[in-house]
Amino acid sequence: MEYRKIKDEEDQIEDGVVGDAVNSRGVSPSTVTSFPTGSVDRLRWKRKMVVTIALTILTSSQAILIVWSKRAGKYEYSVTTANFMVETLKCALSLAALTRIWKNEGVTEDNRLSTTFDEVKVYPIPAALYLVKNLLQYYIFAYVNAPGYQILKNLNIISTGVLYRIILKRKLSEIQWAGFVLLCAGCTTAQLNPTSDHVLETPLEGWMMAIVMALLSGFAGVYTEAIIKKRPSRNINVQNFWLYVFGMIFNALAIVTQDFDAVVNKGFFYGYSLITILMILNHALSGIAVSMVMKYADNIVKVYSTSVAMLLTAVVSVFLFDFHLSLAFFLGSTVVSVSVYLHSAGKMQR
Amino acid sequence: MEYRKIKDEEDQIEDGVVGDAVNSRGVSPSTVTSFPTGSVDRLRWKRKMVVTIALTILTSSQAILIVWSKRAGKYEYSVTTANFMVETLKCALSLAALTRIWKNEGVTEDNRLSTTFDEVKVYPIPAALYLVKNLLQYYIFAYVNAPGYQILKNLNIISTGVLYRIILKRKLSEIQWAGFVLLCAGCTTAQLNPTSDHVLETPLEGWMMAIVMALLSGFAGVYTEAIIKKRPSRNINVQNFWLYVFGMIFNALAIVTQDFDAVVNKGFFYGYSLITILMILNHALSGIAVSMVMKYADNIVKVYSTSVAMLLTAVVSVFLFDFHLSLAFFLGSTVVSVSVYLHSAGKMQR
Repeated sequence: MEYRKIKDEEDQIEDGVVGDAVNSRGVSPSTVTSFPTGSVDRLRWKRKMVVTIALTILTSSQAILIVWSKRAGKYEYSVTTANFMVETLKCALSLAALTRIWKNEGVTEDNRLSTTFDEVKVYPIPAALYLVKNLLQYYIFAYVNAPGYQILKNLNIISTGVLYRIILKRKLSEIQWAGFVLLCAGCTTAQLNPTSDHVLETPLEGWMMAIVMALLSGFAGVYTEAIIKKRPSRNINVQNFWLYVFGMIFNALAIVTQDFDAVVNKGFFYGYSLITILMILNHALSGIAVSMVMKYADNIVKVYSTSVAMLLTAVVSVFLFDFHLSLAFFLGSTVVSVSVYLHSAGKMQR
Repeated sequence: MEYRKIKDEEDQIEDGVVGDAVNSRGVSPSTVTSFPTGSVDRLRWKRKMVVTIALTILTSSQAILIVWSKRAGKYEYSVTTANFMVETLKCALSLAALTRIWKNEGVTEDNRLSTTFDEVKVYPIPAALYLVKNLLQYYIFAYVNAPGYQILKNLNIISTGVLYRIILKRKLSEIQWAGFVLLCAGCTTAQLNPTSDHVLETPLEGWMMAIVMALLSGFAGVYTEAIIKKRPSRNINVQNFWLYVFGMIFNALAIVTQDFDAVVNKGFFYGYSLITILMILNHALSGIAVSMVMKYADNIVKVYSTSVAMLLTAVVSVFLFDFHLSLAFFLGSTVVSVSVYLHSAGKMQR
């Protein structure tokens, strides 16, 4: 149960209720997919690289914090309150960034906090999708165990690619598609363990649910990118503020429906420790990094970033926790590395 | 020990003492690497496809025969005499094909059997390399077990690619190199089993020997291609005849040094059964197919062909022997399939 909850939390950060509290002044927000040629392009490319590396490092250290807290046996706190705190922190950071911008640039049409129903009506959708996905998650464990679910979660990679193509209408070259299939196969290979074959015995219902969950998660990610990119001149901190407000609302609902008694009896912050605070901080910063990747790069880069982070986590765990790397891990890492190469080689080809 | 012997036999056929007893009249022998444009190109491309598919099917059925004979417990015969019979059969088939050619076309400079020392002096080299490799094989089992050796054998893929580049000076595009690395990773992944991680504990000596063996095997394959392609107009049956003569000599030496007593006491054909004869026939035909692939395609195509055959064998074994496919097998097969795609996509790019 603990495992499941942690994974919920990890998913939510990794996949979607995203935010960006960092100033985006100076350079107009847009996607940069080609290699840098002019000085503006170079700046965009550099920014894209910085946010991607930040996301990779934050996601990787996030998994390490989870292992660390598991080792320390610190799981007394309520995960729903922690999620609520993550959203609140992201909201606060967005407001702090906006305050600085208002002080420097004044309030403009693009950075004012007030919004219209037309602009804000789509903002609850990603958070709602995650709610549905997280509810489904409780049922899928009737069909697969937790390690099996970790394997099936790699379907997210494929669903993100497909929905990215369909919804955002952005093309990947054939070589890039080959890379994406390899990314999914490589990540799964790296996670193989002697019990992984059980996943093949998943009944049809389990497969269907896994596919639906992958589609929900992929859709939430792609939809968030669509929202953020719909109005390129709109300040990202405002966009994030509204996304996070709905994140707070949905997480408040989760506290009421799931942990109400515990929170009333033991208190909101019961069981919080230094590591809990570090995890909340890390999750908030990861959320910001995901949002920046969505704004300045795209979902494909996000998927690559979090996949590479998974491999990095394992390598770092060797030193931190005496973790042993398997042959499957080396093979999977090789495939993922080639996949990263193909993604950029396929780009030049277009 | 039996396992090792079978593998020796498999290697020898798979990797090198190759031959082609089929007529090569009509179309001048040459490599075809591009897609068919003219009618001669189309004919060459078709021939290349036919020999590649033949090699794939023969290699695949070869492995199935080995499993079948293991199940039947038929391993009474001496493997060295069987290898000698394979070489003899290939020699006989080359001569039969030559006889037909002489009858139709008369004896010419290109199809006459007589040769010069200058032409024939390089022919024993591949057979000698295999002898050295097979001797080393006895020593490597001090460091790794048989399943571990199967994993390490995938280094052959990389060594063949590297030596193909260095010795034959033929270029692969970057995408094709990516494909080749994936082929190696995919084949290894498909072969993973719960004990595969032991291979990571291989001591340095074991790794060194595995690398030397991979280089010897890759060198023998590439050198055979160089010999066959050196004089394009020379009839392949003559080239094969001389290759096989040395194959016979080296295998005769192996009988004398390894199985002399058994052959003298029990007789040359002791323990031969229907399945032994089928295996000899299959190995001879596989040898012919390898040679045709060397003449009309190249070592890269050969490596792809035998790798895909390995996957085919597993799939066929599901139906024949109630073999269970692992998740690793599916992942490895996916990676190999993408690799095959990249090999052809990378070709167009050049």
